[in-house]
Amino acid sequence: MSKYAFGVDIGGTTVKLGLFEEAGTLLDKWEIPTRTEHCGEQILPDVAESIRAKMAERSITAQDVEGIGIGAPGAVDEHGTMVNGAVNLGWKPFNIPDTMKGYLDVPVKAANDANVAAFGEMWQGGGKGYANMVAVTLGTGVGGGIIVEGKILTGATGAGGEIGHMHVEDQETESCGCKNKGCLEQYASATGIVRLAKRRLAKDDAPSVLRDGEVSAKTVFDAVKANDALAIEVAEQFGDYLGKGLALVAAVVNPEIFVIGGGVSKAGEVLLTYVEPVFRKYAFVACRDAKFALATLGNDAGIYGAAGLILRKDA
Amino acid sequence: MSKYAFGVDIGGTTVKLGLFEEAGTLLDKWEIPTRTEHCGEQILPDVAESIRAKMAERSITAQDVEGIGIGAPGAVDEHGTMVNGAVNLGWKPFNIPDTMKGYLDVPVKAANDANVAAFGEMWQGGGKGYANMVAVTLGTGVGGGIIVEGKILTGATGAGGEIGHMHVEDQETESCGCKNKGCLEQYASATGIVRLAKRRLAKDDAPSVLRDGEVSAKTVFDAVKANDALAIEVAEQFGDYLGKGLALVAAVVNPEIFVIGGGVSKAGEVLLTYVEPVFRKYAFVACRDAKFALATLGNDAGIYGAAGLILRKDA
Repeated sequence: MSKYAFGVDIGGTTVKLGLFEEAGTLLDKWEIPTRTEHCGEQILPDVAESIRAKMAERSITAQDVEGIGIGAPGAVDEHGTMVNGAVNLGWKPFNIPDTMKGYLDVPVKAANDANVAAFGEMWQGGGKGYANMVAVTLGTGVGGGIIVEGKILTGATGAGGEIGHMHVEDQETESCGCKNKGCLEQYASATGIVRLAKRRLAKDDAPSVLRDGEVSAKTVFDAVKANDALAIEVAEQFGDYLGKGLALVAAVVNPEIFVIGGGVSKAGEVLLTYVEPVFRKYAFVACRDAKFALATLGNDAGIYGAAGLILRKDA
Repeated sequence: MSKYAFGVDIGGTTVKLGLFEEAGTLLDKWEIPTRTEHCGEQILPDVAESIRAKMAERSITAQDVEGIGIGAPGAVDEHGTMVNGAVNLGWKPFNIPDTMKGYLDVPVKAANDANVAAFGEMWQGGGKGYANMVAVTLGTGVGGGIIVEGKILTGATGAGGEIGHMHVEDQETESCGCKNKGCLEQYASATGIVRLAKRRLAKDDAPSVLRDGEVSAKTVFDAVKANDALAIEVAEQFGDYLGKGLALVAAVVNPEIFVIGGGVSKAGEVLLTYVEPVFRKYAFVACRDAKFALATLGNDAGIYGAAGLILRKDA
């Protein structure tokens, strides 16, 4: 008989939940608010309660549930311990599976949310069919998730795949959120693209549609698509930083494929045309044939990956 | 009763062999010439013959041998297939364990020699006790071997850990052996240090002991130890490239420890004093506490690691 798993993606505002059947099909998804008050002590009980309600609604017994996978925002070690807690949830360090079992007696696995989303893209998204993958999330920051032979590369302190904080620019004067200067994230994130655009706009009086209205990653790539010369220059700079950055990553973990997601990736395939040629130029010859694809699961990557922690046999 | 394993490290001139007992103690080591003629067809039969002779000498039966581990110079996939053969051995692509079994009926595992040496340093050398390690070999080139949760990171095409070919310098005009320009290897290898020193010497007439006699990685670090100002400048440049390069690596795989080996590392602890501070400055905060150690197995790292492929339980 059919088995199920729940995928849970805990964010600072909402918790996303998904019900999956064994083969990886998403049957149902929903959200609950994240109650961060009192050090976030209600978050996991709320998750358990919500899952219990869904099980009742669909007449699913505990025996039908293979487990619950959880993605959480912070460093999570291989035992599911939040090593440093999670600032935006109010969490102190603790072990997620052990705690969760007090509320619902089914197997629980937990991992970092960015890594879990990468795992989801490998399992059912843009990286499906590949076991060695690097997921790159271009959002407010630049996140990464590395999958080696089908498994998440967690790293010694849960910081595996933190490729947004590779130092790629010695000349930078502004600080990154991490307090270093010249991180990849300062050029390849949504914020980074805006920084590059504003610097380019300030350089001279070259005409551009970007001079009218708000500058965002979206308006920059819209202008690129409209053949705006200045926007194209900005996209080239972005592509230069990201293409070289991913060539560095390739020399370390030699992936089969890079899967690019996050808000910036909504620009679509045009984005890759600025990144791939730079990558191919700078990548070590044996790593040069890595494929590039866009992420396909969007905001559902987290719940897919969390369920995949349970359902994917070699996870 | 006690079990044994053989570790085999195949080089272009000699094959190193080691006999290990189960707990990882090296009981005996020896070398045979590498016969590369006729597409290297005699290499594995020679290895088998040499192992058979050692077994006879020590009255070891096939039942006492847990297996033979082999490190080979080239890309080796997870099944032990030499994906592209090995130019300096004359080898075309083939599967090492399958072929070896025709000569000697014991379990055989094979992997890339640099990765195997890294594995050896983790198992019984400078990285003993750590499961997440990056080995950095500073020799004629810069090699790397990455161990994640106790396992070699092979990569999609066997190029995992090729950190010598990370592009780290946009201004370089000379080509690396790989045909790219600005690879880490061009500054952090023995050859790279000589390049940096010669460039510095040519820049002006500043006095230095390096102006008399041959310039090598050894003479540079000897001069550093003798407080030669120009040599110290060269060491600082070297440390700047390598420290920043390893900070990039740390943001990708987040190791517990870097183990530095190869000919250049014979300079000793002084080498680390030029690398570590730069690393700590540029590394992402969560990766910054990675330890640094010197490799301890020297030229035996390969036979140790090869035997470790057999004897280390989670290999």
